[in-house]
Amino acid sequence: MKGSFRSYFIDNEGKEHTVQIAIEDWFVSDFYSYITQTPATLFVEALEDSTIFQMTYDDIEGLCKEIHGLSEYFRITTERAFAFSRKRALSNLSMTAEERYLEILERYPNIVKRVPQKVIASYLGFTPEFLSKIRKNLTSKT
Amino acid sequence: MKGSFRSYFIDNEGKEHTVQIAIEDWFVSDFYSYITQTPATLFVEALEDSTIFQMTYDDIEGLCKEIHGLSEYFRITTERAFAFSRKRALSNLSMTAEERYLEILERYPNIVKRVPQKVIASYLGFTPEFLSKIRKNLTSKT
Repeated sequence: MKGSFRSYFIDNEGKEHTVQIAIEDWFVSDFYSYITQTPATLFVEALEDSTIFQMTYDDIEGLCKEIHGLSEYFRITTERAFAFSRKRALSNLSMTAEERYLEILERYPNIVKRVPQKVIASYLGFTPEFLSKIRKNLTSKT
Repeated sequence: MKGSFRSYFIDNEGKEHTVQIAIEDWFVSDFYSYITQTPATLFVEALEDSTIFQMTYDDIEGLCKEIHGLSEYFRITTERAFAFSRKRALSNLSMTAEERYLEILERYPNIVKRVPQKVIASYLGFTPEFLSKIRKNLTSKT
């Protein structure tokens, strides 16, 4: 598997909100739609030429029921994804825009360098211009 | 187990944000702190006289490694919690305040009736006065 993706949501005003950014060996999905087996409301877009491995809900459920190790893998992967999603929501409430940019830069340096800056901006809830201003301010500080 | 709880976060301005509401047979935690085994940033408050069953990270990890059925239970429970958390974040972006109140009223009617309205307001990101106004508007419509 190779490449990069984002999942995003389009609100009633036509504005895009990037929910997730994923690179090789990660999962990308409309997770609510996947778990509840209902129609998707998110879009998934490849940001580079990519190769994917697609799995169905029934495949994964069947394999997890059979194989304890796989059940553990998905349990732990989902727990970590949920925990970091909670952390992200709290960061939005408690950190400045600059701190939030620095947090993802520290945690995912390769992703921040690799994907288009407008995707990073949309993930953080910034306009591309605002992200550019933050990056400029940080550069002038160092 | 009996009772009800909320977990909440206090932002830099001292404002409380209710992250989760839990009743009997549910889990309540600072999930990021639990998963990463780092100090908590959330508070957990009992909303009624309550009886809890407390489990440690090591207990659950050990039991999930041993017992396939328990691993499946926590996998599926976490998947559903994460999916509904994602749904809630998207509802905040796409639905009106009234629609969001009606959504939780439909999904959790007993919780909405049972816990203090100020907790429901804080969970929805409303002031208590704003929630009261929405409820009044809905009553006058029916």
